[in-house]
Amino acid sequence: MAIKVHGHPLSTSTHRVLATLAEKELDYEFILIDLATDQQKSKAFLSLNPFGQVPFFEDGDLNLFESRAITQYLAHTYADKGTPLITNDPKKMAIISQWIEVEAHCFNPPAYKLAYELVIKPISGETKEEESVVLQLEAKLTEVLDIYEFHLAQSKYLGGDSFTLADLHHSAVINFLMDTKVKALFDARPHVSAWCADILARPAWKKIVAAMKF
Amino acid sequence: MAIKVHGHPLSTSTHRVLATLAEKELDYEFILIDLATDQQKSKAFLSLNPFGQVPFFEDGDLNLFESRAITQYLAHTYADKGTPLITNDPKKMAIISQWIEVEAHCFNPPAYKLAYELVIKPISGETKEEESVVLQLEAKLTEVLDIYEFHLAQSKYLGGDSFTLADLHHSAVINFLMDTKVKALFDARPHVSAWCADILARPAWKKIVAAMKF
Repeated sequence: MAIKVHGHPLSTSTHRVLATLAEKELDYEFILIDLATDQQKSKAFLSLNPFGQVPFFEDGDLNLFESRAITQYLAHTYADKGTPLITNDPKKMAIISQWIEVEAHCFNPPAYKLAYELVIKPISGETKEEESVVLQLEAKLTEVLDIYEFHLAQSKYLGGDSFTLADLHHSAVINFLMDTKVKALFDARPHVSAWCADILARPAWKKIVAAMKF
Repeated sequence: MAIKVHGHPLSTSTHRVLATLAEKELDYEFILIDLATDQQKSKAFLSLNPFGQVPFFEDGDLNLFESRAITQYLAHTYADKGTPLITNDPKKMAIISQWIEVEAHCFNPPAYKLAYELVIKPISGETKEEESVVLQLEAKLTEVLDIYEFHLAQSKYLGGDSFTLADLHHSAVINFLMDTKVKALFDARPHVSAWCADILARPAWKKIVAAMKF
């Protein structure tokens, strides 16, 4: 099999790549990297990704890390397969890219830290932050979700009328947060809430959630 | 004039966009947004970018924010003009994308915070962090630069043999840090140091530094 993904079920970045593969209807081999024993910091893994993070991705002779670079590679290279996650129209693509960057720089920092604190730490046993830190992160995420609510009132998906990489990049962290008190922040905003329900109901996404159950 | 950039000379994200325009030999109109009076948080500016950040970009009827989305739009849309900052080869482009993501997620967080602390705060008068915070950021940046040093020993530029967006995205923050004690971290690594000298010596970059002098 040409495509291989080295990752872990508790890694939202791993889910981001697997969801793209599922949308693109591509087969792959999954190689578990044991984060509980810090396998991602082993000499062998660091020779694949010197930053010591999953996922690591292979497609034939191409070796790649950084989940958002991998999803963009898949979307461009397998443009004709499965769901079209990007577009050839430069101006429409620019809007998709804008929301890809918003996810990475505005949404993900508070949302991922909340997911780490409320979902991953109870499993890993790491020391939790003070409640005041969680409240600060919730306040930051609230500001971002207010902007999303305004935007999604005018646009069905973040990048326009159809589901794209910009939406897909959010699914994993949102899915983690749906089992926490932070769900209330999404539920309180009707357009955000409908958008979450839509992207989490996609068959490709459900397939990944079932495969990555922890 | 079709292209307009709303930005500020102290904004590294503004520099990132202007450097791309200079490499692409594109003319533009620059509109100063006065960060000292929080103009980026005004109602008028929030109607352009609800996240209240510069730069904001216009190309005819396209309105765009998020600097890395803007540079990618310019690189793709004006592919035939000036310096080719991307490639059509999907696997080579994947490597460039990987290093674009490394800049955004590994390099920029500690490097930008150091630039903010050591260059921008002395100008804005904002309260500085404890020295221990600066030392922690330096330690994080050191880890990243060690990986860059290893990589740049094998590859002239981050994304391969030629200068690309992956390199360009670093120029502004590195340029700010060259006037601080953090310069020593770059100087101590010969391949990183040669790469910095190369990308900061580019005529397009020098043009932006002269135009954005503060």
